[in-house]
Amino acid sequence: MQHDLVIRNARVVTSGGVSLCSIGITGGQIEALGTHLDGEEVIDARGLIAMPGGIDSHVHISQPSGPGIEMADDFASATRAAACGGNTTVMPFCLPEDGQSLRDAVTAYLAKAEGQCLTDVSLHLIVKSVDPVTLGQDLPALIAQGMTSFKVFMTYQGMRLTDAEILQVMDVAREQGALTMVHAENEDAIEFLRDKAERDGRTQPVHHARTRPVPVEREATHRATTLAEVADVPVMIVHVSNGAALDEIQRARARGVRVFAETCPQYITLTADDLDRAGFEGAKWVCSPPPRDTDEQAAIWAGLEQGAFDVFSSDHCPFRFADKAGKDAPGARTSFRNIPNGIPGIETRLPILFSEGVTKGRISLERFATLTATNNARIYGLESKGSIAIGKDADIVLWDPSLTRRISQDDLHHGSDYTPWEGFEVTGWPVRTILRGQTTMLNGAPVGNPDGRHIARTKPDATP
Amino acid sequence: MQHDLVIRNARVVTSGGVSLCSIGITGGQIEALGTHLDGEEVIDARGLIAMPGGIDSHVHISQPSGPGIEMADDFASATRAAACGGNTTVMPFCLPEDGQSLRDAVTAYLAKAEGQCLTDVSLHLIVKSVDPVTLGQDLPALIAQGMTSFKVFMTYQGMRLTDAEILQVMDVAREQGALTMVHAENEDAIEFLRDKAERDGRTQPVHHARTRPVPVEREATHRATTLAEVADVPVMIVHVSNGAALDEIQRARARGVRVFAETCPQYITLTADDLDRAGFEGAKWVCSPPPRDTDEQAAIWAGLEQGAFDVFSSDHCPFRFADKAGKDAPGARTSFRNIPNGIPGIETRLPILFSEGVTKGRISLERFATLTATNNARIYGLESKGSIAIGKDADIVLWDPSLTRRISQDDLHHGSDYTPWEGFEVTGWPVRTILRGQTTMLNGAPVGNPDGRHIARTKPDATP
Amino acid sequence: MQHDLVIRNARVVTSGGVSLCSIGITGGQIEALGTHLDGEEVIDARGLIAMPGGIDSHVHISQPSGPGIEMADDFASATRAAACGGNTTVMPFCLPEDGQSLRDAVTAYLAKAEGQCLTDVSLHLIVKSVDPVTLGQDLPALIAQGMTSFKVFMTYQGMRLTDAEILQVMDVAREQGALTMVHAENEDAIEFLRDKAERDGRTQPVHHARTRPVPVEREATHRATTLAEVADVPVMIVHVSNGAALDEIQRARARGVRVFAETCPQYITLTADDLDRAGFEGAKWVCSPPPRDTDEQAAIWAGLEQGAFDVFSSDHCPFRFADKAGKDAPGARTSFRNIPNGIPGIETRLPILFSEGVTKGRISLERFATLTATNNARIYGLESKGSIAIGKDADIVLWDPSLTRRISQDDLHHGSDYTPWEGFEVTGWPVRTILRGQTTMLNGAPVGNPDGRHIARTKPDATP
Amino acid sequence: MQHDLVIRNARVVTSGGVSLCSIGITGGQIEALGTHLDGEEVIDARGLIAMPGGIDSHVHISQPSGPGIEMADDFASATRAAACGGNTTVMPFCLPEDGQSLRDAVTAYLAKAEGQCLTDVSLHLIVKSVDPVTLGQDLPALIAQGMTSFKVFMTYQGMRLTDAEILQVMDVAREQGALTMVHAENEDAIEFLRDKAERDGRTQPVHHARTRPVPVEREATHRATTLAEVADVPVMIVHVSNGAALDEIQRARARGVRVFAETCPQYITLTADDLDRAGFEGAKWVCSPPPRDTDEQAAIWAGLEQGAFDVFSSDHCPFRFADKAGKDAPGARTSFRNIPNGIPGIETRLPILFSEGVTKGRISLERFATLTATNNARIYGLESKGSIAIGKDADIVLWDPSLTRRISQDDLHHGSDYTPWEGFEVTGWPVRTILRGQTTMLNGAPVGNPDGRHIARTKPDATP
Repeated sequence: MQHDLVIRNARVVTSGGVSLCSIGITGGQIEALGTHLDGEEVIDARGLIAMPGGIDSHVHISQPSGPGIEMADDFASATRAAACGGNTTVMPFCLPEDGQSLRDAVTAYLAKAEGQCLTDVSLHLIVKSVDPVTLGQDLPALIAQGMTSFKVFMTYQGMRLTDAEILQVMDVAREQGALTMVHAENEDAIEFLRDKAERDGRTQPVHHARTRPVPVEREATHRATTLAEVADVPVMIVHVSNGAALDEIQRARARGVRVFAETCPQYITLTADDLDRAGFEGAKWVCSPPPRDTDEQAAIWAGLEQGAFDVFSSDHCPFRFADKAGKDAPGARTSFRNIPNGIPGIETRLPILFSEGVTKGRISLERFATLTATNNARIYGLESKGSIAIGKDADIVLWDPSLTRRISQDDLHHGSDYTPWEGFEVTGWPVRTILRGQTTMLNGAPVGNPDGRHIARTKPDATP
Repeated sequence: MQHDLVIRNARVVTSGGVSLCSIGITGGQIEALGTHLDGEEVIDARGLIAMPGGIDSHVHISQPSGPGIEMADDFASATRAAACGGNTTVMPFCLPEDGQSLRDAVTAYLAKAEGQCLTDVSLHLIVKSVDPVTLGQDLPALIAQGMTSFKVFMTYQGMRLTDAEILQVMDVAREQGALTMVHAENEDAIEFLRDKAERDGRTQPVHHARTRPVPVEREATHRATTLAEVADVPVMIVHVSNGAALDEIQRARARGVRVFAETCPQYITLTADDLDRAGFEGAKWVCSPPPRDTDEQAAIWAGLEQGAFDVFSSDHCPFRFADKAGKDAPGARTSFRNIPNGIPGIETRLPILFSEGVTKGRISLERFATLTATNNARIYGLESKGSIAIGKDADIVLWDPSLTRRISQDDLHHGSDYTPWEGFEVTGWPVRTILRGQTTMLNGAPVGNPDGRHIARTKPDATP
Repeated sequence: MQHDLVIRNARVVTSGGVSLCSIGITGGQIEALGTHLDGEEVIDARGLIAMPGGIDSHVHISQPSGPGIEMADDFASATRAAACGGNTTVMPFCLPEDGQSLRDAVTAYLAKAEGQCLTDVSLHLIVKSVDPVTLGQDLPALIAQGMTSFKVFMTYQGMRLTDAEILQVMDVAREQGALTMVHAENEDAIEFLRDKAERDGRTQPVHHARTRPVPVEREATHRATTLAEVADVPVMIVHVSNGAALDEIQRARARGVRVFAETCPQYITLTADDLDRAGFEGAKWVCSPPPRDTDEQAAIWAGLEQGAFDVFSSDHCPFRFADKAGKDAPGARTSFRNIPNGIPGIETRLPILFSEGVTKGRISLERFATLTATNNARIYGLESKGSIAIGKDADIVLWDPSLTRRISQDDLHHGSDYTPWEGFEVTGWPVRTILRGQTTMLNGAPVGNPDGRHIARTKPDATP
Repeated sequence: MQHDLVIRNARVVTSGGVSLCSIGITGGQIEALGTHLDGEEVIDARGLIAMPGGIDSHVHISQPSGPGIEMADDFASATRAAACGGNTTVMPFCLPEDGQSLRDAVTAYLAKAEGQCLTDVSLHLIVKSVDPVTLGQDLPALIAQGMTSFKVFMTYQGMRLTDAEILQVMDVAREQGALTMVHAENEDAIEFLRDKAERDGRTQPVHHARTRPVPVEREATHRATTLAEVADVPVMIVHVSNGAALDEIQRARARGVRVFAETCPQYITLTADDLDRAGFEGAKWVCSPPPRDTDEQAAIWAGLEQGAFDVFSSDHCPFRFADKAGKDAPGARTSFRNIPNGIPGIETRLPILFSEGVTKGRISLERFATLTATNNARIYGLESKGSIAIGKDADIVLWDPSLTRRISQDDLHHGSDYTPWEGFEVTGWPVRTILRGQTTMLNGAPVGNPDGRHIARTKPDATP
């Protein structure tokens, strides 16, 4: 039998193991795995590792970011960077503008994405307003259309929900079989510390980290898992930054709550000291939760090694330094309070985990695939994605495990004008990304047409 | 030397030990401890145990209770019952009427107490409104007047404060050296469950307990201790009902937070099944947090044995059954939601702990004194109270450890028309209560004049 | 291309997911996965689930069992039962006779297995004597021959090692890259309780369970993980029976110790009450650790659901009832002390977990494959086994997920004359077992020749 | 009434509080507490603090220490130093010589103490041999004579007991109502690490600490509390050095085991770095368990603050440096293995805790008294000791809380020729020690006759 495309002699990785074999692709899907496959086109992958294409299940693209601030990435640039970083699917959040309905926001987002994407995309929703239309009409309709997950915020004024509101949202999730994601930080406690800091003149970027200490995340994590317990739903705690918050998740699991957990590259490689650079430079590392310290990095690693984390995403949320620092000049912002939250990372997520995790021997190739693609697909209901297996979309990334690179803004493809990992050395880099059988990145450069689609998802299956 | 009064040959109990000796009292104070004391009046206490007079550090008296509901005790009846139960000091809460300032409320409370009390009293404040006058003027003024502790509620609509408000209150506590007490239950979660229960027609009294399950108390306890951690103040968690909440307290202590903990008779003797009696009878046991089950009772006992609890109070909050059940007839209330919260217990607190704790060998006499008087005085700044020691007020209660009684409403002196412990058998009962040298109860009957005073307190000392 | 055998249209399960496809097998190996495969022989598996053949990584066969006692299974009967229960590989322990060297024991075991086996086998070693020959010569030689795991006992007189001896064995494991398995129960504490029980006349089978209470397993588990921490080696704790022991494992993992954990069907389905049947009947359920209670079953289930367990084995250790109860007559044994330890379970392991786990919705098919085959292969170094993937041995079991059966001794193929699960109803049963391409069981009956081989293993890879 | 002696106007401290009053002493006992006491002799204690005389419940005196090594203190020098450090009772261990019966050892110890002691003494027993005579005759006889506590060792070759032996000893404790004390370190694990260290040439004193790491103490602590759980007895874990071991104790308490805990000055002030001084100087700090690091010090402080520790003793075990380092010259010992274990601290225990605890505001005076005298008396059954209360022995120490001193070997009275705290500054120092009414130390110098007695004890009361 002749396949459209055959990838020959790769070490093919799945959550279940590693096989040296060939992959036969037809019609954009994986049609065969074997040792004697023929194809119209053949890619010789000897010496390379074939992984399921990365699914970045937590990214922000073209998101409203406050007056005068523009997010640094639109769908074109974000998915281009994603493809160059080894990803075949990204999951951006749909945040309504003030006054906009969730359904209208989705329509607008999909329009922005249309024809622009070098990866597939699938939207998560953000519920920032709990009103009868959102809960009673928009969410059920959008879930039915395959947007089966939504995030609620316990922080950020204007976005945060009360516990009562979160419970209402979770109740919809329970009824509709959707998954609630939670950004867990206690806004009131942060505001209390932020006010104090400002009153005392502690306004530099590093005070962003110091006014969001571990206890405010630990508290909100316990609360979020308790709300899920009360509402009797599974819950995903996103971007866990420290061991104390992870302990809360483990404790909730021991009580029988089904809790998924995500962490991100910033929490295994950066620290609060990065925010403490001269001038307003530290603004480049401002994100929430903030990076912690090396002890907390070790706790996050322990969680990755022991299987306490389900997914590893980027929380890509890109701004340009001028927007981080204030439009006119560095230093124009008078307080860390006003720095847009978020850092770019969509292109560097996979190499950082590969190098720090696989190359350094902390995790296996199987665990890497599980954390970056397989679980992301399974938990969020991307049925056709996440594994190199018969019938799945032919979303594949080829890695050269021996390639050593130093991360540099010059080589990246995102819209931000800096990377928090400038100069960071990694060994292991993706050399070819294939989306439904079509190459989208080759040797570091984007190729092909922006044929990415929006993927409707099934309802998440929380069975362990 | 001749004392006004000598109590001879009692087993005198303090936190530090038990001595067989006499107590010399002059001018209402303990002037001497020894074996050869002479007095104008002599009480022969051979065979009895002399304890520091009980301090009930958590009671509600004459408190506004909603339209048409009158609390069953005023200061006269509450302190009469307290004295008959072995107490010499009670600490009621001062709750402002809607629109009333905290200072005006204190004035009104003190006026109600004036000339009525058979025990000394010292007011805790309730902060139900966080406004500049309350925080900036009333609290500092009242703290300066010796009301050095105040309670905040995380539950009860109309009383509950947000986390932001609690932090502001704690900040005042930190600046002024006062102590914040917290009623820790998550109102939003309770409301979520209560709404569901009502929608499903589950409206009987037992659903009061089922809609306030352990997780809502555990959650709020973790949050309260975290807010104290963020605000850098000590905190008292009142009426802890279960092991999970106590675990949160122990975890906070292990993080270095100074957390005090209180429990009450209901959590070592009653269960949620008591709320499940026929008809609306269960309403008699409605209080918050609700009694749990025998496993949680065991966890509370373990806390008492291991020193995890600092004080044991009654949370006396008395209503008459007609008010619990609805004015007209049992069953008139259509939902547990409307049952006034609280049970009477001011007279039975000490015998229950003595019998279940000391008589049954779970705790020593010293621990009993510590939990019911010494710590209550020390933690709340009642400098002249809480111990049988030179210079302290001669507040003493004589116990007959061999007296067995069956608790009966017929024998009690409170204003409520029932007791939740009807028929409960105890061994060990107070036979004489002495307030500043004057007998206020003898053999179960109140005696003497209502000479109780309001006691100004020093700032709490949180040193372990 | 023509395969020797094609299994058509099964739902093919791996740890990474489920695909509807065909499996092409040539030369006993999986050569292709796809949708258009041709084979000389074709099995239509529509409606069936294709799993990796079960690997029972903890079984006892033909093991010396004390004077006058014969283990109920030899290699022929044990592997016949294993194949009928959906297994393609079993891992028996090699226990030397007293005075026999480990190498001689291996030779003898392999001789017994030769030509008898309907599954592949791979021996674990038991180290019951720590002497220079065993540590310095036999273990290195046998590890080099592919027996890369060995068990030590903290219980059983004559087998138990001291901590000092266990550390020496672990040191060899560290140097040679082998894996140490530990049976964790504190013999001294058991002996203390057993002596007391016997002195008090408590000699019925149920006292086997009561004299091996949870604390003795918890203690030994903590100690075993600490010894591994001190020796700096990974460790496998076998047959974990309760939540407290599992907590110890989780705590050790949180400290950075690499701990693998196994549990067995008895700990999710049986209780100590089973040992308390009339007469000496309870002897049929005597195994160590003993079954606990339903709370501990729930804790074990939580561990299975949360990924705390790595493997699920049978601990098949079969005796005949006459040997359990004493040769002559039931009741001939005067004390539970003398009952041979162990129960048969090689044939029922997989259906029990399938039915209780997958059918009842507690775990996914992927998790089932992981626990019963994939992890067993990976952790113990069975490189060619454990997954349906290209290049692996064609060890496959076809399940009918809708088949409901009642377990009955009449239908089983082991050498024991009873099953502890008599009458237990399961839904989901294996209907065909295939070992390296050859069918060994069809519709409940063993078929084919005993072509099972001994498999040399690679050194375990403990990378998460 | 005229007392023999009156101490006027001290701040009198008990576990229950602080009173400004006078103490009347007659016949060596406290006869009165009051404000108008007269005595033949009067001590003006204005400005001083009167504490119950220190009870050092863990000291080693004249103990057999191996060939050629002589313990630096006999009863005369040890009790002289104890009195100078504010103590009125010390509790040395009675260790039999090899082959000597426990009863003969007691006789010999008491003979050595007779007429030599400036404090009262009360012997603990050490059980190093579990034989019928020791268990069946000597222990019951000695318990009946008031030696109601005994220590077992899990470490030290020649002294350590197996778990089976410890259980037998605990069983005697249970039957006789005595208290078992445990030195909890895993000897086998230490020996494993010690052998490795020596093989690698790591033989300097600091390797004493490195070969007894926290896990070996944590493990043994868990085991010891489990053995107590199995034997159903209370247990005292002595000299807890770190947070992980303390966690084990708290976990055991949560399971309902009655566990007492002791810590010592070395674990709040010294670290393993002290053992790492140039040459063999580090030998001066060699004791077991070894000092840890500042994190573990913080954990021990947290335990002291939260009431997790019951007693604070010295574990005084004095040697001269020549004996620590080898007779002939520093460096003569070829390995840390041979350094006698133990450090002197009988005279500095109280000032260190007073200064670091009370003066620095970590603990109250009441807690200080509880940890250093009241609990020591109560837990070990010294009925006439431990509190300033009517009827107790007049064992009192007067403190000047404002006196600042630098600890110096030149000022100490023990037999050792160094102090591990040389140069350590403390504020708060005892200025007068009074034993049963007789002054034994005044302003730093011993006074009076060695009238100390051996005190028979009652059976410990483990009621909380």
